Amino acid sequence: MQVKEWKKNIRTVVPYIPGEQPKEENVIKLNTNENPYPPSKKVMDKLKEIENLRLYPDPSAKLLVDEIAKHFHVNSNQVFVGVGSDDVLAMAFLTFFNGKNPIFFPDITYSFYDVWAELFRIPYEKQALDSEFRIKKEDYYKENGGIIFPNPNAPTGIGESLVFIEDIVKHNQDSVVIIDEAYVDFGGESAISLVEQYENLLVVQTFSKSRSMAGMRIGYAIGSETLIQAMQNVKYSFNSYTMNQPSISLGVESLKDQTYFEETVKKIINTREWFGEELKKLGFEFPNSKTNFLFVTHPIYSAKDMYEKARKERIYVRYFEKPRIDNYLRITIGTEEEMKALLTFFKKYMEIR
Amino acid sequence: MQVKEWKKNIRTVVPYIPGEQPKEENVIKLNTNENPYPPSKKVMDKLKEIENLRLYPDPSAKLLVDEIAKHFHVNSNQVFVGVGSDDVLAMAFLTFFNGKNPIFFPDITYSFYDVWAELFRIPYEKQALDSEFRIKKEDYYKENGGIIFPNPNAPTGIGESLVFIEDIVKHNQDSVVIIDEAYVDFGGESAISLVEQYENLLVVQTFSKSRSMAGMRIGYAIGSETLIQAMQNVKYSFNSYTMNQPSISLGVESLKDQTYFEETVKKIINTREWFGEELKKLGFEFPNSKTNFLFVTHPIYSAKDMYEKARKERIYVRYFEKPRIDNYLRITIGTEEEMKALLTFFKKYMEIR
Repeated sequence: MQVKEWKKNIRTVVPYIPGEQPKEENVIKLNTNENPYPPSKKVMDKLKEIENLRLYPDPSAKLLVDEIAKHFHVNSNQVFVGVGSDDVLAMAFLTFFNGKNPIFFPDITYSFYDVWAELFRIPYEKQALDSEFRIKKEDYYKENGGIIFPNPNAPTGIGESLVFIEDIVKHNQDSVVIIDEAYVDFGGESAISLVEQYENLLVVQTFSKSRSMAGMRIGYAIGSETLIQAMQNVKYSFNSYTMNQPSISLGVESLKDQTYFEETVKKIINTREWFGEELKKLGFEFPNSKTNFLFVTHPIYSAKDMYEKARKERIYVRYFEKPRIDNYLRITIGTEEEMKALLTFFKKYMEIR
Repeated sequence: MQVKEWKKNIRTVVPYIPGEQPKEENVIKLNTNENPYPPSKKVMDKLKEIENLRLYPDPSAKLLVDEIAKHFHVNSNQVFVGVGSDDVLAMAFLTFFNGKNPIFFPDITYSFYDVWAELFRIPYEKQALDSEFRIKKEDYYKENGGIIFPNPNAPTGIGESLVFIEDIVKHNQDSVVIIDEAYVDFGGESAISLVEQYENLLVVQTFSKSRSMAGMRIGYAIGSETLIQAMQNVKYSFNSYTMNQPSISLGVESLKDQTYFEETVKKIINTREWFGEELKKLGFEFPNSKTNFLFVTHPIYSAKDMYEKARKERIYVRYFEKPRIDNYLRITIGTEEEMKALLTFFKKYMEIR
């Protein structure tokens, strides 16, 4: 049979597979790094006041952009907002990575980077983490078409210092360097303080983790006016009205409640530290985490088997069937109660084998 | 001065300029084809019940997809949803228009088509409308890499029959043909009935106009399973979680209130017909509209001047400084009261000149 011409013109991609979103109730969901606490009460109160849905949202999302700018002490023309940090990162790939040289990112990292590179046909080259899952900065000192990595890195949870980040930026004045700080609020050091000095540095953050608003899809980038303007131009050529009206309003409210933000972040950090100690008692090993998850392995027990058995008990953690990390579990830090349930599962699992 | 390497790698685009969104209160806003009536009460009631914003939305937006499928009597795997029809159309361009032949669309049409073509570097060729702003279907019978046009067309407001559309699809079995039906509910004939028969036909609609939900950003495409699957793959490679949780929930509620939908659509059609008669009395000329706007010109008075003077009176209509249509105004149909205010303006304008 002859393949129709229009079928040949379809863009073929290997789609990203998002973490499982179980539809049943009463599960313990520690697989997609969501925040166990609800958003600020200010956010939920504002939701009830929303009106005028018949009108297009402000395409520039000015209220939200201004609030983010105020929060980080930058100018509004240094802020770009999008539908989650995935939207922001996709726009950044499309805007900045148009050179002939390959872009660089770690071999173990956020699984979307190679997906975007494939989608937009951007040449790329993965740089291997060292045996302790650390980024080797010297690997990024070769000629390249751009650099991107998360700090703290995912799924390892390891955070590098500002000095380390600045070194990479300094060595790459000819590339756009993107630091993906989805998890930075849980103990990492942000590179936002460097954007005044480095016109080629873009820092991306999100409301999905530390601000408990994954359901609203709000991400943003902070960088030089030049970078932000270029992204705006591409965004306006793609979809002028990306942020819907509730996202704009609720994002603003979240930023206004700094006390709640700090409280919940602190609670999660405390739970992580306590849970980590408990895991060590069970023989688990993991790098020091600056995020809201732990990336754990066990010298005796199989990660895949534990993942599958936990799933049967309605406890969801994340397992990646990928080279180098196929004996690891990425465990989101939930409430203390949820972590206790997981510890109980592990104890039971280890006894019954 | 030497231009830095990273600046050379920035994608250069001519961004789309969205219609003005005036920030002051008490304006009569007839410039971006919004619905003058609020969304269904069911939608507003549901908004107040939203919770669990801390969780990621369902990436497949299953509840909304299923409700759309039910509404149009198609299968759920024939429905794609996105952040407004702009998002859906951008994904369709990226997915389907990867051939060497130029894609075709009218010279006078939705201003985003050439913007997307430029953004994704897709070759394109505009086909001129005839002197009465009608699409000449024979122009679309040449070899091409894809076809897209709105039906009813914008900004002309002219709707073509289903027979006309089918003729174009029939003659283009080697191309993906996209019919952009943003305005179809105001009197047009939808091509959704043809998707079973033509695997290469994609129909795109939106909640922004007839469903009064521009502020929520909900668009969708209906087509064969092959087309929808290909779009899903690209979408999952771009941003898995595009539809935020409120959009999914509120979209479902809107579809459930068919009575309100029909009532408001009918009101707008009635206002359009009455307003059109009044405009004719003032000497305006315009094609028969199947949309929620009229595309008007006057043999004596300058469109640009009327646009500017109306603006000073806080009445916003749309003016395009483009070849062939630079003496036209696109006027959204608002409430009867709003249209009366515009008529009063026109009468005053014509007397005082």
